[in-house]
Amino acid sequence: MKKRVTLKQIARELEVSVSTVSKALKNSEEISRDTKDKIQAFAKLYNYRPNNIALSLKNKNTKNIGVIIPDIVHHFFTTVFRGIEQYAGKKGYNVMICVSDESFEKEVLNMELLANGSVDGFILSLSAETQERNDYNHIKEVLGQGIPVVLFDRVSKDVLCDKVILNDQEIAYEAVKVMIGSGKTKIALVTTENYFNVSSNRAQGFEKAIRDANLAFDENLILTLPYQSEGDELIRDFFESNTIDAVLCVNEIFAIKCMDVVQRQGKRVPEDISFIGFTNGILSKYSTPRLSTVAQHGERMGETAAKLLIDRIENDVDDNFRTEVISGTLIQRDSTIN
Amino acid sequence: MKKRVTLKQIARELEVSVSTVSKALKNSEEISRDTKDKIQAFAKLYNYRPNNIALSLKNKNTKNIGVIIPDIVHHFFTTVFRGIEQYAGKKGYNVMICVSDESFEKEVLNMELLANGSVDGFILSLSAETQERNDYNHIKEVLGQGIPVVLFDRVSKDVLCDKVILNDQEIAYEAVKVMIGSGKTKIALVTTENYFNVSSNRAQGFEKAIRDANLAFDENLILTLPYQSEGDELIRDFFESNTIDAVLCVNEIFAIKCMDVVQRQGKRVPEDISFIGFTNGILSKYSTPRLSTVAQHGERMGETAAKLLIDRIENDVDDNFRTEVISGTLIQRDSTIN
Repeated sequence: MKKRVTLKQIARELEVSVSTVSKALKNSEEISRDTKDKIQAFAKLYNYRPNNIALSLKNKNTKNIGVIIPDIVHHFFTTVFRGIEQYAGKKGYNVMICVSDESFEKEVLNMELLANGSVDGFILSLSAETQERNDYNHIKEVLGQGIPVVLFDRVSKDVLCDKVILNDQEIAYEAVKVMIGSGKTKIALVTTENYFNVSSNRAQGFEKAIRDANLAFDENLILTLPYQSEGDELIRDFFESNTIDAVLCVNEIFAIKCMDVVQRQGKRVPEDISFIGFTNGILSKYSTPRLSTVAQHGERMGETAAKLLIDRIENDVDDNFRTEVISGTLIQRDSTIN
Repeated sequence: MKKRVTLKQIARELEVSVSTVSKALKNSEEISRDTKDKIQAFAKLYNYRPNNIALSLKNKNTKNIGVIIPDIVHHFFTTVFRGIEQYAGKKGYNVMICVSDESFEKEVLNMELLANGSVDGFILSLSAETQERNDYNHIKEVLGQGIPVVLFDRVSKDVLCDKVILNDQEIAYEAVKVMIGSGKTKIALVTTENYFNVSSNRAQGFEKAIRDANLAFDENLILTLPYQSEGDELIRDFFESNTIDAVLCVNEIFAIKCMDVVQRQGKRVPEDISFIGFTNGILSKYSTPRLSTVAQHGERMGETAAKLLIDRIENDVDDNFRTEVISGTLIQRDSTIN
């Protein structure tokens, strides 16, 4: 296919200097009308376009924000993205997303790619592998170069930057308290590995609610599903070999799968076993029964992250990093007893 | 926050020319050991990094692909993205996504942004508004600049480029035939506006199957839902005021909503009314009853699009544009009678 013509090619073709071409295309008064007409006509004919990237290198700001998320299948991340886009759009910023696919290497590559002049700053949620390895050098390096980063949801205390998180521990505590209040006593937690900060915080809230109610805390009632597997077999075994009357799940997909399994085993939801999930997505609204869930307010989280980032890009803010906490909301539907 | 130091700043600070700094950082033998040591130490201290964007301007290829999709909430687009990423990753390309949010203006802006040197080519699915306006100048302009574009799923015959589509008409025909085969005669279509090429093609397959079976074709049994509304009210009215025993829906969200409405009206699925949707997403697998659906093989579509694009980026292919057709697969679950 045709290649775009460059300043250099125009200069060679018309036997003038590159600087003359550049000035002529900017309509500079230093250049004669005749020469300008000739150069401008030639540039038009061959589809010359000034390269924005080169321009933005000069002007420093690209007005682009890079977003790196672990996946685009989870409803939660897509709603955060919407919030980022809405706020950024209002402020005149464009948003580019890269997906780490839960891979450390991809997260690093995506960051390197965008850190080299394409974006003014990053909004990022750590990949599973990054949290597992506990290796944040790529983020520290970018911060060290003066490019601001805001972490959201999956964050690490080892990275000093602005953050937006959910009150995971408190809202998990509240959810379990609601189930205890409706008479449940054998409450299970279905979660991901503890190197996810969010899972670890939710587990703490879960345990605290059980202990505060003077119920027995039984570690066997915690099912940890590996993030890469479907987990269907593990779920079946778990519900077959334990007596459980309520379940807190750290995302809606786990909750939908578990409800499906127990209903196939002949149990009634919520009478025999009640469920609360995290993420108030479309799955929760149309499952049978409809799933009670913790709304994480992804859009608000995204807007907040974008605001923190753009503040830091545009103003000479000091190094006192801020952590904004979004409060989750428990939405009760048919999978819990009211 | 700290700003990155530039070649120019290093030169000024050390009172040497920019070209000396550049050569010293590349360890050129033209520069004395002493000067190189001094410049390299300074660059290290102030976090100097060569700008990859500038490098890639020189080398022409950015090894980036820009993907523009209408939204990231629909399962289908996320699976296409996965397919693109997998193929591109193997070939050493990075993928950046922008979301048009069904807006013409955003699609144009995103394209302009990336067309100016950030990517080697585009993979794009048209926004609702773009299809409605039937305005493709932004895409034609990019193609005219010699940047290849591959359209997928939502395409237009008015744009000459490589395309990947589903056999929408044929697979819709097949789905309706299955419902007729199980004794259904009053079959409805729940769809989006006809300016979506996919909806228009599916509607043609739908009508043809009904006429070929010598059933009466009733235009009142076509419900067109506006893409911006929830449509709940329209769905309720539609099923209250018409006698319907089977429904083809152009996406899984419509199907889930419709099944929900008719079950609340006391009808049994599939005995009284059977359903087939498009998009074999997670919603279809966990709905009650489980939804029979047309798998659109999004990953394969994405891989095919990436292959077409990278072929065109890397080889001097001629202007005979190709259209690859992916065959949908009907997956029968509990919402149809087997």
